Amino acid sequence: MTDTTIALAAADSGLEKSLDRLFDLLRIPSISTDAAYQAECEKAARWLVVELTALGFTATLRKTPGRPMVVAHYTPKTVTAKTPHVLFYGHYDVQPVDPLELWNAPPFEPVRKKDKDGLERLYGRGAADDKGQLMTFVEAARAWITSTGSLPVKATFLIEGEEESGSPSLIPFLKENKAELSCAAAFVCDSNMWDEKTPAITTRLRGMVREDITITGPRIDLHSGMYGGAAMNPIRVLTKVLAALHDKNGKVMIPGFYDGVKALPAATKKQWQSLKFSEKKFMSDVGLSIPAGEKGKSVLEQIWARPTAEVNGIWGGYTGAGAKTVLPSKAHAKLTFRLVSQQKPEIILKAFQKFVKDLIPKDCKVEFSGEGSGAPASEISEDNIFIRKSAAALKAEFNRAPVLMGSGGSIPIVRNFKDILGMDSVLVGFGLNDDAIHSPNEKYNLASFQKGIRSWVRIMGALAE
Amino acid sequence: MTDTTIALAAADSGLEKSLDRLFDLLRIPSISTDAAYQAECEKAARWLVVELTALGFTATLRKTPGRPMVVAHYTPKTVTAKTPHVLFYGHYDVQPVDPLELWNAPPFEPVRKKDKDGLERLYGRGAADDKGQLMTFVEAARAWITSTGSLPVKATFLIEGEEESGSPSLIPFLKENKAELSCAAAFVCDSNMWDEKTPAITTRLRGMVREDITITGPRIDLHSGMYGGAAMNPIRVLTKVLAALHDKNGKVMIPGFYDGVKALPAATKKQWQSLKFSEKKFMSDVGLSIPAGEKGKSVLEQIWARPTAEVNGIWGGYTGAGAKTVLPSKAHAKLTFRLVSQQKPEIILKAFQKFVKDLIPKDCKVEFSGEGSGAPASEISEDNIFIRKSAAALKAEFNRAPVLMGSGGSIPIVRNFKDILGMDSVLVGFGLNDDAIHSPNEKYNLASFQKGIRSWVRIMGALAE
Repeated sequence: MTDTTIALAAADSGLEKSLDRLFDLLRIPSISTDAAYQAECEKAARWLVVELTALGFTATLRKTPGRPMVVAHYTPKTVTAKTPHVLFYGHYDVQPVDPLELWNAPPFEPVRKKDKDGLERLYGRGAADDKGQLMTFVEAARAWITSTGSLPVKATFLIEGEEESGSPSLIPFLKENKAELSCAAAFVCDSNMWDEKTPAITTRLRGMVREDITITGPRIDLHSGMYGGAAMNPIRVLTKVLAALHDKNGKVMIPGFYDGVKALPAATKKQWQSLKFSEKKFMSDVGLSIPAGEKGKSVLEQIWARPTAEVNGIWGGYTGAGAKTVLPSKAHAKLTFRLVSQQKPEIILKAFQKFVKDLIPKDCKVEFSGEGSGAPASEISEDNIFIRKSAAALKAEFNRAPVLMGSGGSIPIVRNFKDILGMDSVLVGFGLNDDAIHSPNEKYNLASFQKGIRSWVRIMGALAE
Repeated sequence: MTDTTIALAAADSGLEKSLDRLFDLLRIPSISTDAAYQAECEKAARWLVVELTALGFTATLRKTPGRPMVVAHYTPKTVTAKTPHVLFYGHYDVQPVDPLELWNAPPFEPVRKKDKDGLERLYGRGAADDKGQLMTFVEAARAWITSTGSLPVKATFLIEGEEESGSPSLIPFLKENKAELSCAAAFVCDSNMWDEKTPAITTRLRGMVREDITITGPRIDLHSGMYGGAAMNPIRVLTKVLAALHDKNGKVMIPGFYDGVKALPAATKKQWQSLKFSEKKFMSDVGLSIPAGEKGKSVLEQIWARPTAEVNGIWGGYTGAGAKTVLPSKAHAKLTFRLVSQQKPEIILKAFQKFVKDLIPKDCKVEFSGEGSGAPASEISEDNIFIRKSAAALKAEFNRAPVLMGSGGSIPIVRNFKDILGMDSVLVGFGLNDDAIHSPNEKYNLASFQKGIRSWVRIMGALAE
């Protein structure tokens, strides 16, 4: 019998008490976006400090200008040169609950309920986002400690209380406590499984860089009758520029744009193709039917593994009711570029600026007024040791290999961990798409909670091997 | 000695008294845009009724929901089947005077002044726009009547009081008095000479039709990270459509767009080429240097004789400060098309709509929400008898042929006369570009006034021949 097997048995036998503790935490209305709940947030943080201290962690409540952070360190009984030090991240704050009238039960009086489909679910604000999830690794640690006397790894738990309000204190906190918080890797438990039966690890997050452009034609707004035909309209220039961004196959035409973009590894491509992902449903859910990205790439590849050039906003001239026969002086657009692989924000920006300048008539002007900064993609190789060990552990628990997912968006914490603390993040979570996070009747499947705890037990064990 | 010669002599000998009368009219602050001056507008209208009645006109003050119209008819002593009935149009209302502190003299205390360049000018609000101008045909009529006993033509004077506030009462008034006001032609005296020495007749006004379009991509706004790459951005579609409107030589690419566009008559083209028109100055005045219209056409041809497809406004997505990573559901644009020759508004609209639809991806939608109406160009042939007679009369007075000008914009009164009363307009005026109409220190050159009166004397005489 291995230590992991012993800890798994402890997780199972302790499940009811794990649920009791989760419900204790769910009863604390730790809404971070509303100042009226500040004391409740502090109460939730203290609750975690007490629990983790009881488990043998050196747990502290750390003040910030906003809601406090919980930082807890655990040093195992036996430490060798090979014992990794890893960080686990979650957040104890929750979303507001309005509209209250749509809840079937009070949001802070959690309910365990067997639904008509025979599945047991846990209902309440925070059940999935993120109290249910963070308690999976807390209870996994408990299973290890209570059954084997120790965690198998050196662990730091970082549990913040401002995630739902944009984490204003996080970056300064990471910078101030860089030495204390830097680990070999971070495990972030705030994401979803692929589906009820299939675990997932998010290994790809696209980066982003933005730019705002203003085209000036005539120096003042003109009458479109008196000047129309002779004076260049900056909207005409702007639309020519923006229309030239994509060819008819959805490829971005900025020279050098794809430099550093790596082809999807064959294995990943094959795995994504094997997923029961309905492109048709994904598109029709938003009223569309034709994928707009590069031809020949699947929708998942388009949103997870390919870069974009997107116009988020455009304006110029008269935009009110009725008509105004103006030939405007200026036209504007706001763009973002989603980046993948090794694309460098500063190089993409320069390439875009050159692309625009080359298309501007000599008597028109262009100004660039974006932030001038951005972030590259966060991608962890499938060969990364933490990914490999986590994947193997999840496969053992679920009896199927986790999907190595991408996400089209950025998750700031991943970028912050990388930029400030120099560590990669492994995103493993047990939520489901129908968990109704941020909505009334938020829920977490009992299976998510139980298998989540068991998965972390296995991952912690695997990390020590 | 012809009657015209006699009348010209009378105009000259009566000039000082003509100026006295103009100054009387200029002293009435008939600002139509400010309700506080309503009584002054009525006073100006009554003043005209009194003057015209004294001359032998049947003159009436006609109430409207706004400022009154002056309508005066004159039937000559001798009328044959060939005696034409023509209408003369002007307006007695004037622009507001602010900023008052920039005036060298009170705006309603007109001043006659010899400037340093040796030219005499008349300063005061309305000196050029339009009291000075309308008094040129009133005083020409006086010269004819006092010296020969009659006007040589049947004349109707229509002098409105709301031109500076958008002529809200004009269309209903024309409709209600259609029989009374319909003539063989209208002479509109509210425009400029080509330069101090060269008279002008505006024979071309471009028409216009407008359309608003909305492109819908996804049915709701999306997150540009989660959907970017797969979901079509309606701004991308809109910019593709608008960018396709013009080729690189400035030609409009809508199929059938140029149907009905006539080439400029060789004589007109030659005359325009002979004008001392500086394309360079015209463009640089507005901060540009490269004419944007069809290559191979002069700037004057581009704005006076060629049609346009102009985007007056564009908007979609996020247009505020900072960034929002939205992939919007909708994108919008407002367009106007300036029309020439025989281009038909309804056909242009249909051609544009088809052009757009052909460029829209099958899963996107386009809605058209413009007014669906418009007006064709107003162009009078150079062979028109009223143009030919007026041109000959102006040439006799100025010793050089008038420029047959175009105007890139529309002048509503011309369209209204054509549509409601079925008559063409001959636009002859004696203003100059530096008259500062609508600005402080508005002026009218004494020469404009004197040669204006003499020109109308000649035109009236020519019409009777």
